[in-house]
Amino acid sequence: MLETTVPKMKILQQPTQEAWIEQAIANLDIILLDHSHCERKAASAALNLMFRYPSYARLVRQLTAIAQEELEHFELVNQWLDRRGIPLAPLNAPPYGAALKALARHNEPQRCLDLLLLSSLIEARSHERLGLLAQHCPEPELARFYQGLMASEARHYGIYWVLADHYFERPVVMARLEELAAAESQILATLHPEPRIHS
Amino acid sequence: MLETTVPKMKILQQPTQEAWIEQAIANLDIILLDHSHCERKAASAALNLMFRYPSYARLVRQLTAIAQEELEHFELVNQWLDRRGIPLAPLNAPPYGAALKALARHNEPQRCLDLLLLSSLIEARSHERLGLLAQHCPEPELARFYQGLMASEARHYGIYWVLADHYFERPVVMARLEELAAAESQILATLHPEPRIHS
Repeated sequence: MLETTVPKMKILQQPTQEAWIEQAIANLDIILLDHSHCERKAASAALNLMFRYPSYARLVRQLTAIAQEELEHFELVNQWLDRRGIPLAPLNAPPYGAALKALARHNEPQRCLDLLLLSSLIEARSHERLGLLAQHCPEPELARFYQGLMASEARHYGIYWVLADHYFERPVVMARLEELAAAESQILATLHPEPRIHS
Repeated sequence: MLETTVPKMKILQQPTQEAWIEQAIANLDIILLDHSHCERKAASAALNLMFRYPSYARLVRQLTAIAQEELEHFELVNQWLDRRGIPLAPLNAPPYGAALKALARHNEPQRCLDLLLLSSLIEARSHERLGLLAQHCPEPELARFYQGLMASEARHYGIYWVLADHYFERPVVMARLEELAAAESQILATLHPEPRIHS
């Protein structure tokens, strides 16, 4: 069961720049295909965390629910691809994911904190960008689809944050979040030339 | 949507020996904990195959459904652990999984065939062993739980087999299945001393 109360908090340091919106709206089909990969990767990321911390009962319970939701979204996005005649295909990932992963410290328990906060940041950025797509997408039905997914992404980033806050001291969480959030905004400061959810 | 028609076929070469049943029934709590890990690993295995073959639409669609079911079972098994006061904890894996994985050839398309057939064999063995637990478990409610999961495992091994049969020629599939099934039975011929679903 996903927790329904999430903190109303601003986690991203810098908002997405206008240039991303233009790039995305001009390439809706590629964005949809990349979105499909993002949902599958988000499910894998949740499973990997469960695998790494098998005895953290709260984490396992809540990430199971997140993985299930990501797989539901993966199916929904794939139905959109199908309807638009876009074949499933591999797609080069933008540098975003690997650059964030490189920031995770290797020693425990710091690694656990970093992985939770990085997942929270990724979900928060997805939430922001799906919101921008909902707002700017010229196709009303697709815009409504993005709007519908936004609430889940907001819940997911809240859950990752609450898990970090559960397993670690609040001041430690806040200090590390600030560092990672700054790096996350910095990574996106230069628009990646290929249109992606996280370009 | 999972396909409902699965081939009525005998895929395992040797049935489970009596010694496994005795070991499992004498260690029901450990078997439940290992079962939890098995369900999570089965979900991961489905996601990994989707990641490896992102443009195989049929594979992606059907393995999404399998991953979702495995996560549902993971939750159900974890509820049983909770009810019995068994804390989530890591557990050494028996040699079974790694030994099977080592049999997958490295070149494509052979690797794809091998991974599908190995998943089919693992699901078939799980189906057989959950059936044995359903039959021999002295606790009626737990026995009914195992009985309830059996149908899904049977469907899963059928789906993996049907996928192999979809992407490869039937005689190639059957010849390789025979080799892998012989190896699978061979791996289980010596009972692993630690009680596990695949000991």
